[in-house]
Amino acid sequence: MKDVKVLIIGDIVGRPGRYCLRDLLPKIQENYEIDFTIANGENAAAGKGITKKAMNSLLESGVDLITSGNHIWDKKEIFKFIDEERSIIRPANFPPGNPGNGHQIIETNSVNIGVINLSGRVFMSSIDCPFQKGKEIIDKITHDCNIIIIDFHAEATSEKMALARYFDGKVSAIIGTHTHIQTADEQVLPAGTGYITDVGMTGPYESILGVESQAVIDNFITGIPTKFEVAEGKVQFNGVVVHLDSDNGICKKIERIQDLHEF
Amino acid sequence: MKDVKVLIIGDIVGRPGRYCLRDLLPKIQENYEIDFTIANGENAAAGKGITKKAMNSLLESGVDLITSGNHIWDKKEIFKFIDEERSIIRPANFPPGNPGNGHQIIETNSVNIGVINLSGRVFMSSIDCPFQKGKEIIDKITHDCNIIIIDFHAEATSEKMALARYFDGKVSAIIGTHTHIQTADEQVLPAGTGYITDVGMTGPYESILGVESQAVIDNFITGIPTKFEVAEGKVQFNGVVVHLDSDNGICKKIERIQDLHEF
Amino acid sequence: MKDVKVLIIGDIVGRPGRYCLRDLLPKIQENYEIDFTIANGENAAAGKGITKKAMNSLLESGVDLITSGNHIWDKKEIFKFIDEERSIIRPANFPPGNPGNGHQIIETNSVNIGVINLSGRVFMSSIDCPFQKGKEIIDKITHDCNIIIIDFHAEATSEKMALARYFDGKVSAIIGTHTHIQTADEQVLPAGTGYITDVGMTGPYESILGVESQAVIDNFITGIPTKFEVAEGKVQFNGVVVHLDSDNGICKKIERIQDLHEF
Amino acid sequence: MKDVKVLIIGDIVGRPGRYCLRDLLPKIQENYEIDFTIANGENAAAGKGITKKAMNSLLESGVDLITSGNHIWDKKEIFKFIDEERSIIRPANFPPGNPGNGHQIIETNSVNIGVINLSGRVFMSSIDCPFQKGKEIIDKITHDCNIIIIDFHAEATSEKMALARYFDGKVSAIIGTHTHIQTADEQVLPAGTGYITDVGMTGPYESILGVESQAVIDNFITGIPTKFEVAEGKVQFNGVVVHLDSDNGICKKIERIQDLHEF
Ligand SMILES: [Fe+2]
Ligand SMILES: [Fe+2]
Ligand SMILES: [Fe+2]
Ligand SMILES: [Fe+2]
Ligand SMILES: [Fe+2]
Ligand SMILES: [Fe+2]
Ligand SMILES: [Fe+2]
Ligand SMILES: [Fe+2]
Repeated sequence: MKDVKVLIIGDIVGRPGRYCLRDLLPKIQENYEIDFTIANGENAAAGKGITKKAMNSLLESGVDLITSGNHIWDKKEIFKFIDEERSIIRPANFPPGNPGNGHQIIETNSVNIGVINLSGRVFMSSIDCPFQKGKEIIDKITHDCNIIIIDFHAEATSEKMALARYFDGKVSAIIGTHTHIQTADEQVLPAGTGYITDVGMTGPYESILGVESQAVIDNFITGIPTKFEVAEGKVQFNGVVVHLDSDNGICKKIERIQDLHEF
Repeated sequence: MKDVKVLIIGDIVGRPGRYCLRDLLPKIQENYEIDFTIANGENAAAGKGITKKAMNSLLESGVDLITSGNHIWDKKEIFKFIDEERSIIRPANFPPGNPGNGHQIIETNSVNIGVINLSGRVFMSSIDCPFQKGKEIIDKITHDCNIIIIDFHAEATSEKMALARYFDGKVSAIIGTHTHIQTADEQVLPAGTGYITDVGMTGPYESILGVESQAVIDNFITGIPTKFEVAEGKVQFNGVVVHLDSDNGICKKIERIQDLHEF
Repeated sequence: MKDVKVLIIGDIVGRPGRYCLRDLLPKIQENYEIDFTIANGENAAAGKGITKKAMNSLLESGVDLITSGNHIWDKKEIFKFIDEERSIIRPANFPPGNPGNGHQIIETNSVNIGVINLSGRVFMSSIDCPFQKGKEIIDKITHDCNIIIIDFHAEATSEKMALARYFDGKVSAIIGTHTHIQTADEQVLPAGTGYITDVGMTGPYESILGVESQAVIDNFITGIPTKFEVAEGKVQFNGVVVHLDSDNGICKKIERIQDLHEF
Repeated sequence: MKDVKVLIIGDIVGRPGRYCLRDLLPKIQENYEIDFTIANGENAAAGKGITKKAMNSLLESGVDLITSGNHIWDKKEIFKFIDEERSIIRPANFPPGNPGNGHQIIETNSVNIGVINLSGRVFMSSIDCPFQKGKEIIDKITHDCNIIIIDFHAEATSEKMALARYFDGKVSAIIGTHTHIQTADEQVLPAGTGYITDVGMTGPYESILGVESQAVIDNFITGIPTKFEVAEGKVQFNGVVVHLDSDNGICKKIERIQDLHEF
């Protein structure tokens, strides 16, 4: 059977990120013969949170499923649609009773793809244990899925690698998000799970994590709160493609994508 | 005038890291025609701190100057030799009165190279401001140095990029260390400073940041303190080479190096 | 029916704390006509953790049940006896699978007293939610207990008050521990739960939280790791007495105790 | 010479705190024969920051000098008047270049009172070292002041006690603020400095640190951002009075004040 090629795109930041996706995604999907596209959308609306409009923009550009992270509740609009919306998930280890879902199984013609969103806890808010909650969900969905992919939205490299080695062989790929900087450690772990510590960001290139630089620098130097605006100019596209064997769920290859786009 | 090529090597972890350096460094220096070699040695002794023996091993392998970070005081032996030792520096924004030096100027045949070690504060210990202390030192040494290189030992991607953009054009290169994961964002910033968020780690490949995996995983899952040992097996070499114009200090190129070594 | 008077004693630090207890506790129990005595023992062995010997010392001095907190695993010996030991509990919201128990029901002649140990998460390690885990246990044991007391081992005043107001009326008393400084906000909350943000510490008075002062000061100023030793000299006793109506579990009065002891 | 009696009032929260002050302060000043009144005003305007109107309200109620802390920049209006305003100070160890002053010397008929505002760093933002900056200022003003008082706005009990023991004998009193919970450890340290870990809060009594409780509880349980409003109902007054010998600056007595006010 042919490989399933899944594209995972790093945190999309604001309008620049969304427009970059609109302009570049179709071509990238074609070039890499992508079967399924996941994108982290926690910063899609003006850099913080996601609105229905921003969500629809991502879906229309060709994203199949949107994952998220700590910024998911930043725009209040989200509470109106996340419960009914099958195209967006939030970290599964957020407290019980939180709106929305933490994982989703998508049935394509050929395979069932389970996608789990988890969030780290080191240097982040206190939530439920991602190791434990991840295991619970994997155990529950593993028989219904040919492949399982985790978006692990976390800060600390230690927690990311630990979770990856813990689930190595249990899922097809574990893709880190949240730091907005792509790492160069893409690899297939010993038991067959594709891994990268962070897939990076899709947003303004001349910026600090997508944000206009001077405000961030001033904030670091003075400690005085400044207003963070999404930066302008050239936009970077950051993603990874994992080549997955749908018979056994094993990752055969993981490759990084970086592109620069000017409007 | 010919370019000055400086190699910066990511945190060297334990004996595997030191032996990897001993075996690979001469060849790498030759291949890349390296003029000057800097290595972060904060984990050189059994993964925590650095001893005189570990220091000498790095120097004998071809390192010209050793930088460090938060683990520098882990081995008590350091207090005996850091004050007299010109080959090792520690973050300059550590509290006043700390032993050792935070920067060093090395006079080679052709150029004077200033190396500054700074540490971040986000998700780390409270120390003096790296932006301010960095500026102070740059202002002081800039007239005596053809090129200045900063090892910014920090956790948060935002702080690293912010410091880099703040000093863009003031120094030749800003190389991040501490996360032990190499990033894929190497670039020459608009005003000519070479930059990478993290150069990575030189140490055990099948590990979590150099440490034997199971103990780290257990610690994350149970919260119970476990003993961290440096892992065994294959060793990775992580570094970057910056090509610097010694006339104006501008970075013309930055390239990542990754190598895998088996003993 | 007569009130049940429960004494709760703040973190006992090292030998000075244990000896203070041995010398003062019988008299205090007599003066206040105490029915049941709880003490936090996480620092009973040399300031970090608890050994069998330290535990026995507390029990022999008249403590009925020992609670604990983040330092419970500091002495490895604990793993040998915590599973069988009914006289010591550790935070119930520690990860599943941790040794020991998070609550205990003690049957006295007249009443069944449930004691729950919980730990906060703000500025502390990431563990399970104390609000949720606390609710779970309360729901489970409430019908078997005339009174329930919580030792909430936490740092942040906001988290402590929030948990107290959340469980107001559901338990008889919520007593904070961990900061080693007694607070002056003892009160009966609107629905009848006795509360104090922190009961304080039983240990060396001329100290920083029980530790010899100079080492702590040096550590703050230099950032260099120093060795922390339990201080000497006069010892303070810190506790609270809650007067509980055993018919309805309501707290009628909460009073602070501070004493100074010289050997 | 007669003692100088200084009243220090804990963080004043919103309109309830301001009105409480207006109604109670004159009487308290009379009863305790207060010579000088300091109040922490960082939460005076709707619980976050301080406006000119809120500042004037405090001054008109009888406050002589306003100190502050981490919330000082929350209301943008502050930047318009803090530079010229002699009645308000902000932590002296905020980054150089920050608007406003970190200490003030007030000349009364009989004595010169130096007041220094410092902020902690443990569990708080990274700023300059309070030990070092405090020492700098004390050294500078000690010859011009009969008495010096420090408002140490900090979270961790360890940092507060450490700073107090470090400056014991160098200043007349060190009064902690920020946690909004009064502690019961008021004492005169061995070398004559009056100390309390936290003076507490002047604001709504049935609340969580002055804030309406349910929103805080919901935030802890769900992790979802909620809107924090200043609570209503009864208001507590929290302060301490230090009795200082103006000849040698030594603290002879420190007493806590708690009052409850209903409008
Ligand atoms: Fe993001
Ligand atoms: Fe994020
Ligand atoms: Fe390191
Ligand atoms: Fe480090
Ligand atoms: Fe303790
Ligand atoms: Fe504790
Ligand atoms: Fe406050
Ligand atoms: Fe504050």
